[in-house]
Amino acid sequence: MGEMVNVAVDAMGGDNAPGEIVKGVVEALNADRRIKVFLAGREPLIQEELKKYTYDPERLEVVHAQEVIETGEPPVMAVRRKKDSSIVKCMYLVKEGECDALVSAGSTGALLVGGQVIVGRIKGVERPPLAPLIPHMDGVSLLLDCGANVDARPGQLLQFAKMGSVYMEHVIGVANPRVGLVNIGVEEEKGNALTKEAYPLLRHCPEINFIGNVEARDIPLGAADVLVCEAFAGNIVLKMLEGVSGALIQKIKAGMMSSLRSKLGAALVKPALKRTLKGFSTEEYGGAPLLGLNGLVVKTHGSSSAVEIRNSILQCIAFKEQNINQKIKEQVVLGD
Amino acid sequence: MGEMVNVAVDAMGGDNAPGEIVKGVVEALNADRRIKVFLAGREPLIQEELKKYTYDPERLEVVHAQEVIETGEPPVMAVRRKKDSSIVKCMYLVKEGECDALVSAGSTGALLVGGQVIVGRIKGVERPPLAPLIPHMDGVSLLLDCGANVDARPGQLLQFAKMGSVYMEHVIGVANPRVGLVNIGVEEEKGNALTKEAYPLLRHCPEINFIGNVEARDIPLGAADVLVCEAFAGNIVLKMLEGVSGALIQKIKAGMMSSLRSKLGAALVKPALKRTLKGFSTEEYGGAPLLGLNGLVVKTHGSSSAVEIRNSILQCIAFKEQNINQKIKEQVVLGD
Repeated sequence: MGEMVNVAVDAMGGDNAPGEIVKGVVEALNADRRIKVFLAGREPLIQEELKKYTYDPERLEVVHAQEVIETGEPPVMAVRRKKDSSIVKCMYLVKEGECDALVSAGSTGALLVGGQVIVGRIKGVERPPLAPLIPHMDGVSLLLDCGANVDARPGQLLQFAKMGSVYMEHVIGVANPRVGLVNIGVEEEKGNALTKEAYPLLRHCPEINFIGNVEARDIPLGAADVLVCEAFAGNIVLKMLEGVSGALIQKIKAGMMSSLRSKLGAALVKPALKRTLKGFSTEEYGGAPLLGLNGLVVKTHGSSSAVEIRNSILQCIAFKEQNINQKIKEQVVLGD
Repeated sequence: MGEMVNVAVDAMGGDNAPGEIVKGVVEALNADRRIKVFLAGREPLIQEELKKYTYDPERLEVVHAQEVIETGEPPVMAVRRKKDSSIVKCMYLVKEGECDALVSAGSTGALLVGGQVIVGRIKGVERPPLAPLIPHMDGVSLLLDCGANVDARPGQLLQFAKMGSVYMEHVIGVANPRVGLVNIGVEEEKGNALTKEAYPLLRHCPEINFIGNVEARDIPLGAADVLVCEAFAGNIVLKMLEGVSGALIQKIKAGMMSSLRSKLGAALVKPALKRTLKGFSTEEYGGAPLLGLNGLVVKTHGSSSAVEIRNSILQCIAFKEQNINQKIKEQVVLGD
């Protein structure tokens, strides 16, 4: 067995904090002995939750943080002012090397800002992309960038492609991942100024397996393993995926309840349907890594339940053991 | 009863031409006596199909066109060279005032180019947006622009908002339609350079009912009646909607077939589910109008079946009788 994987977890972030966060932490500790968690937040609240569970106390350390950064706060100001917040404390644990990674369901803005100004970028990385795994018909794709920094430059899209390829190959285990450029047509000349300039950069890059443009329609069919785009487009892809599946499932449920006959049928299909839809839920795959930082920062959904927190923590093991940041350095910095 | 509504229909466009197109034309003729159709394409093929049906021959005229513009052809060249194509013939029927509208399932590029260079823009309209109706939980929204012209300017987004409002109110019948700006956050300061500049223009426009930014996640919930965005973003919204619903429905069907128990249930829920999902299909709402031209150009899906063709033709009645283009002129040109 290798070294321990030390993960800082923000106990106060998200809609279900601290209850579901603490539960997810305990589940991760019990699932894998390589994990040690530094749980940051209001200690009395955390201890209250911890009482409910059994776990190895040697591998859990509570780090008291009095303040909480709320989702609506202007992130730059919040990160600067709230030094005693759970997010900022987690950031310093990573910066100072005490932790390898941090997991938070809190403010995306604060994580993006703190990731850059406290944890810091890997030298040569221009912009750290937020890279969620999104489900498709037969598996998952990595979508990057979905962050807050819109209007990326073509060279940054190339860096996203390289970092995404490293992550998909070594953390998720997809050999020679197919990289697609999210675009409004498959032909090379389609798109906006950004995609037209990015296309030849991607095509001529020997380190990635570029398969060309991917239309949004084909994303849910699994057209590529790594989906490269600027953050405005990425956000729309991600939110449409979540919004359409949510609305459709709601509509299907309502449809099934519309007659006695269909209600009977619904009772029969329910278990099979639940199994099927589980694979199409974004929660199952853990949070979204913010790639290209000196350490791993994982942003989970604001609505994270224990399962997403647990999966996000467990994801950090492969990230450390596969030495992802070293590989990113080699690809992005030396490959440029 | 008012005047006849003369609609040019491209018999050769789309994957199911001419069979489904001719069928849809006949259905439209039989559904409403105000409709007269000019059906352009290879006459022998069209006559062959027409033989199958009963309809009022006084209200159908076949316009022979020898050539066909294929989907993959570079549109500018195709429109210029193929003067004897079904699309170009339809364009001239509208330009010369013989027809009020044209409906085609053919090349989007050729329709966008022909719409601008043959039919022509309404004076003052900078860019004619392609504006599909997209289904949401409880109805439909108009999404514009989904065209081929990306990188719109803020003032063009304002024109889209005005044209879309006229269309939703007077063709679809939504009183005081809510206009939303598609964005990556709800706060005014969110987004890219384009949305940040467009927001105040929309907010200060007295002719529209602007409700602010709309996140993609809320589009399927019906967050706005008119969704304003630049074409790259609009294309992603539209294609994700189609792609995710398609993939999910396929997955659900497979899930239902996974066990004997669920197969039995599937047989019981099927009729109710079919009814429910019909409301979520983009086909039901007819094609996408290209707004701001001297006449109406309607683009239907390449995969259009007769029902979409019929609905698209019938849509032209309200467009003419409500005098939409006059209203667009007043809003866009005089309102500027």
